[in-house]
Amino acid sequence: MAESWLPSLITATPQEGFELAAKLARLGVKLTQPSAEIRDRLRSDYDEDTGQLIAASQVVAVHFQTVAAANNYWRD
Amino acid sequence: MAESWLPSLITATPQEGFELAAKLARLGVKLTQPSAEIRDRLRSDYDEDTGQLIAASQVVAVHFQTVAAANNYWRD
Amino acid sequence: MAESWLPSLITATPQEGFELAAKLARLGVKLTQPSAEIRDRLRSDYDEDTGQLIAASQVVAVHFQTVAAANNYWRD
Amino acid sequence: MAESWLPSLITATPQEGFELAAKLARLGVKLTQPSAEIRDRLRSDYDEDTGQLIAASQVVAVHFQTVAAANNYWRD
Amino acid sequence: MAESWLPSLITATPQEGFELAAKLARLGVKLTQPSAEIRDRLRSDYDEDTGQLIAASQVVAVHFQTVAAANNYWRD
Amino acid sequence: MAESWLPSLITATPQEGFELAAKLARLGVKLTQPSAEIRDRLRSDYDEDTGQLIAASQVVAVHFQTVAAANNYWRD
Repeated sequence: MAESWLPSLITATPQEGFELAAKLARLGVKLTQPSAEIRDRLRSDYDEDTGQLIAASQVVAVHFQTVAAANNYWRD
Repeated sequence: MAESWLPSLITATPQEGFELAAKLARLGVKLTQPSAEIRDRLRSDYDEDTGQLIAASQVVAVHFQTVAAANNYWRD
Repeated sequence: MAESWLPSLITATPQEGFELAAKLARLGVKLTQPSAEIRDRLRSDYDEDTGQLIAASQVVAVHFQTVAAANNYWRD
Repeated sequence: MAESWLPSLITATPQEGFELAAKLARLGVKLTQPSAEIRDRLRSDYDEDTGQLIAASQVVAVHFQTVAAANNYWRD
Repeated sequence: MAESWLPSLITATPQEGFELAAKLARLGVKLTQPSAEIRDRLRSDYDEDTGQLIAASQVVAVHFQTVAAANNYWRD
Repeated sequence: MAESWLPSLITATPQEGFELAAKLARLGVKLTQPSAEIRDRLRSDYDEDTGQLIAASQVVAVHFQTVAAANNYWRD
């Protein structure tokens, strides 16, 4: 992971902030399971499992809380 | 997802803020499982499963915490 | 849900704040499963299941954190 | 629950704050399952189940975060 | 638990703060299951169970968030 | 663990902050299960289990929230 994959938390809009939060959730998995081949193979284990889809949404929610605070809730 | 689905976190009332939080929780699932057809098919897997209903409520709670802070708790 | 079910986060006491947090946790379930008849039928699935009672208490805890911050921890 | 069971979040010490957080975690269960008889009967379902003991500790952690903020982390 | 087991949240370093967070996570279990003999007996139920090790790490993370805020992130 | 493994929460970039958060998540496991030999042996129990990969990502998310706040979201 030499390349720059998280230069900033600042985004132009809440929507971009939410997409960044989803990226951070995926990055959290990537740092634990670096193999893209394995992660792709595992997709079918969760993408129709509602319990895991809800759990994944929870991770996005925590990251979105961080990104929203970083952007002062896009109030400026 | 080219269209604008999250223009702002600011809402007029706590109730609208809570509804936005529920929308964000669903969006977190949508970004992980983009297929509306699959998400609709999966509904019966959780909408009468109390463990998953509680977990979904937890995701709403985290998002509502974010939205409430964004709106300064509607104290103004 | 046309009626007003969340006019404010401000409460007179921490106790009322905790009760509001419990209401918000239930509202999170209600927004996902709108049928009162189904929710009532499902009660026996969790009200003697300690894992789910703990998970429900977690949702109340997140909402109470939000309500407490909204009320400046009732320090005024 | 007419009596006053949560007059304040302010405590003299972090230790009292942690005990209040544990009380709030139990209150979250009590509001969902009001019957003391049932809650006592269910104790053996979790008090030697490490998964549930960890989950209960998580609820205490969220409430302690709230109580600690309420007391300005007992820095005054 | 008459003795003083949580005099302060203030620590000299982030490392001590992280160790305090781990102590708080264990204290949350101790308040729910006061018997040291039972807690010791149960250790083998989780110390090689990755799901529970991850859940325990989550509790430490919430407490560390509290302790870090209490210490102004050791920036002073 | 005499050596210094957490000197500071301050990092130069969000990316380093995210990597620190992942380190903290692993440290939370290490404090609960100090044996590197056991932790290595257990890796295969979670590194292809999507439920646990999501749960691990959640722990990273909580720690990243802490690290991001410590660094004032790298806005300076």
